[in-house]
Amino acid sequence: MRRALAAEGYAAVTIEGLAQEAEVAKQTIYRWWPSKAAILGEALLEGEIPGMDVSVAITDDLEADLRAWLTTMYAHQADAASTELARALIVVTATDADLGLRLNARLAAPIREWVGHRLALAEEAGQLRPGVDAAVVADQLVALASYAALLGTPVSAERVEATVQMLLHGIAA
Amino acid sequence: MRRALAAEGYAAVTIEGLAQEAEVAKQTIYRWWPSKAAILGEALLEGEIPGMDVSVAITDDLEADLRAWLTTMYAHQADAASTELARALIVVTATDADLGLRLNARLAAPIREWVGHRLALAEEAGQLRPGVDAAVVADQLVALASYAALLGTPVSAERVEATVQMLLHGIAA
Repeated sequence: MRRALAAEGYAAVTIEGLAQEAEVAKQTIYRWWPSKAAILGEALLEGEIPGMDVSVAITDDLEADLRAWLTTMYAHQADAASTELARALIVVTATDADLGLRLNARLAAPIREWVGHRLALAEEAGQLRPGVDAAVVADQLVALASYAALLGTPVSAERVEATVQMLLHGIAA
Repeated sequence: MRRALAAEGYAAVTIEGLAQEAEVAKQTIYRWWPSKAAILGEALLEGEIPGMDVSVAITDDLEADLRAWLTTMYAHQADAASTELARALIVVTATDADLGLRLNARLAAPIREWVGHRLALAEEAGQLRPGVDAAVVADQLVALASYAALLGTPVSAERVEATVQMLLHGIAA
């Protein structure tokens, strides 16, 4: 299912095709899943379709780590197969709210963990503005990743840099 | 089409239903549009389906204006009909990349304009960090709006406040 989604995209994957690939009748699939969104959503949830994880080493440089995270995430989105998977995920989420929340919880979890670790280090080093909530920062990164996947347009190094500076220093003088 | 989308959501709207409503044969619809995403996308583009615009008055208080924008946007997303429209928009964008880019350009335009005006005022008043790019700030807001529409979960006043503070002051000490 991962191969079909990555190669053809969500719109081109059909229940017929999935039934053929699994060598079962179409009705068998409909007995267990009410829709294409549901069957693909379950597959994404069960980890048959990995590869959305952005894993970046944590160093002692907060700015460099944020830059590395965004750069890696945007490079990942620029890969055609990843884009199709991410877009399929977005279609499932927009189509089935309950599945969407479970998928989001699963996919956002490693980002939340990474941000949590990174900001705890920064706080220990006295580099964090008091009151900064790691969950808010993580959601900002997830929102950027989701929007990049949705649009599928490349993001320049200059744009990454401007985003890093905005995350670090905000817009106020 | 707006009524059907808002009331039933993207998944429940069918080409059959649209043909019936327009009193034409299904084939007539397929002659002009290759898919449901395409027909709904065109309707969204042609403005048959408005109501996604967040219009907030600009005052002389940058922080209050950002808070008002986010509060209005999240309140808008909490409305069930708006959520269905926004989700339909996301499905169309994730399904048809070209339509998606045109829809995004159209829907992001008023946000970019608002942010452009607001930040120009802040810059005149010496309230802006040098080098802040209004386009980056606008895209951050669009990403937050898109992610909120995708998830459809309510956002608390505390979360709005934390987001305003992060946008204004960043995370660095």
